[in-house]
Formats: sequence, structure tokens, C-alpha cells
Amino acid sequence: MERKQLIEGVKAQMPAKRWEHTLGVMETSVWLARKYGCDADKAYIASILHDVCKYWPVQEQAKVIREQGLPQDLLDYDKELWHAHAGAYIAKRDYGIDDEAILDAIRYHTSGREHMTLLEKVVCLADYMEPGRDFPGVHNIREIAEHSVEKALLTAFDGTIRFLLEHGKKVYPQTLYARNGLIDEIKQSELPES
Amino acid sequence: MERKQLIEGVKAQMPAKRWEHTLGVMETSVWLARKYGCDADKAYIASILHDVCKYWPVQEQAKVIREQGLPQDLLDYDKELWHAHAGAYIAKRDYGIDDEAILDAIRYHTSGREHMTLLEKVVCLADYMEPGRDFPGVHNIREIAEHSVEKALLTAFDGTIRFLLEHGKKVYPQTLYARNGLIDEIKQSELPES
Repeated sequence: MERKQLIEGVKAQMPAKRWEHTLGVMETSVWLARKYGCDADKAYIASILHDVCKYWPVQEQAKVIREQGLPQDLLDYDKELWHAHAGAYIAKRDYGIDDEAILDAIRYHTSGREHMTLLEKVVCLADYMEPGRDFPGVHNIREIAEHSVEKALLTAFDGTIRFLLEHGKKVYPQTLYARNGLIDEIKQSELPES
Repeated sequence: MERKQLIEGVKAQMPAKRWEHTLGVMETSVWLARKYGCDADKAYIASILHDVCKYWPVQEQAKVIREQGLPQDLLDYDKELWHAHAGAYIAKRDYGIDDEAILDAIRYHTSGREHMTLLEKVVCLADYMEPGRDFPGVHNIREIAEHSVEKALLTAFDGTIRFLLEHGKKVYPQTLYARNGLIDEIKQSELPES
């Protein structure tokens, strides 16, 4: 599919305001990809598509998860997680994306997971900190992202977990595995070289 | 082993101040067990033994975990978790406890786990809220425990998770599974009867 056609197709799936957010994620993820050294083109494509199912009725998102053998435990957790997994499936089926690295960046952009690739981190972090975002703590995340994608993403995930705790909601275990994994990575990167 | 002999044996494993804490857990867990309807005698025995390894050198605790086939992933997480699993092993080996319900209450008194029994909840909660405890939020936990062991324990676990987040430490996944499970239980208990 042509780039322009892809953009028009995804844009039609969401309200104008959400498309603005998608443009922000595209810009930020390309910036992060270039800064930290992963494929900026893949970051761009994943960002275009990351919210492709976000404005589908949740029943439709759940149907994709149920019928396409996606992780069924998602259905026991916050609905906010569903569009990411459903979106990866739709990116492949309707938009011809078959690069697994791109599909994983779409799939894990909300929950995160243990052992995230740099591309996954970049898209996930861009989704948190794109210029249109305005939640308490976002400036701090942007500042940290100037020197560490892992530390910025850890701060972002910890904010999400705190939010869920405060609101008496369940935390998807992969999000915990993701932030625990980032702590290990950060610690590892700070060991003195032998 | 006679009850008196058991108490003397465990008391000798820890400083006097920690034994004071153990007495508090014994008292509180018996109160909770009677209030919420599980075996107060088992709660009492588990409470006597819950910190039996707490003052062992951590290398000794780790050795038990490594050599006795206890969950090896514990060694990647906070050392505070080790004495509980090691303690269950020692309770059986050195103190002749062979009731699995009691051993599980010792084993999971720090981390918690998914699908905790009432006895496990009672010992774990008693450890958080016994009269000698004095951390921010403990009064709130005690108040909630007057009407719900699940809500009190959820509040306690959430406090622990928040503390670990604030200090940049990894959270043992079983603790998350425990608090997610409590949310499900609380929700279930609040459904209108059909």
C-alpha cells in the first residue's frame, strides 16, 4: 500500500482530534528513533497505525481478540489495552503490514511487555509524550527522554501503574514486567565497564 | 513439637524487638481469623513462624531458595521476599509443621499471590497492621480491616507497590497478581445477589 493511501485509510478510522495525536506520535517516534538508533521508517509506519482500532466500538475490538486467538486475558483488563492488540491484527489484515517488528510495536504500544525492542519502546514512549499530550508529569517524561528512552518509559509506565492503583483498577501484568525489565536494563547500562 | 517449645525455638532466631512484632502478628491474626472465619489455631502457628528466617544472613536465605528448589526468580527481586519462602521450608524441616495451609500462609506472607486463601490473607494482613507497626497509612489499613480483609490487604499491597515504584525497585509479579485478584474478589462480593 502506498504511504499516502495508508495515511488516508487510517485517518478515516478516527476523529480529527485523534488524528492530530497520531501525527504527534509519528513526529515524536521518528525523532526518538533517529536519536536512539532504530529504524525511523518502521517507527513512522507503526505510529500511523498504532491507534487504527482505537475508535472502533469496544465490542468490535473484543471480537477481534476473541476470534483471532489474541491473548484472551486482555479481556479481563482495562479496555484501553484492547485496541493495540486488535490494531496489530488489523494492520496486517487490512493494511498489508507484514513486518513483525512493526506489528509488535503496534501490539505493545499500550501495555508494553518484558524485553521490549528499541522500536517498541520508541513508539510506546512517543504515544506518552507527543506534543499534544498534556497530563501531570508529561514535561518530566519529555525531559528524561532527552537522555534515556528507558528511564523516560519507566517513568511513564510508573505513572500509569500509579494511576491504576489510585483508581482501584487492575494492572495488566505485562506492564509490570515491562517496567521491571527497564529497571534491569538501566541498572545494567550503569555498571562500570570492566 | 509442643507449642511452648515451638515458641522458644523461634524466639531464639530473632532479636527481642522482632519477637515483639511476632507477638503482635499472633494476636492480630487470631483476631482476624475469628472475625472473618478461618482456623485461628493455624493462623497462630503460621504467625509464630512467619519470620523464623528473617534474621538469618541473606546468603543463608538465598542458599535455601537455591538448594531446595524454591522459586528461583525470587533471587532477582527484593531480598525482603526471601525469608518467607525460606521460612516455610524451615518451618517444615526444623519445626515439624506439615500442614500445607499453614506453610502457604508463611510462604506467601510477604509477596502474597493470586487466589490467596483466607488464612494467607489473614497472616499477611496481620503482618502489615499488628499494633507495633507504625508507617504512614497503617491506621487506614486497620480501619478498613474492621469491615473487609480483602479491602485492607489491597490497600496494604498498593502501598507496598507505590513504595517500590517511588524507590525505583522491581515489584515481584505475584504481589501484582495478588492485588489484581483482590480487586476481582471485592467486585464479585459487591455484585447484587440474583
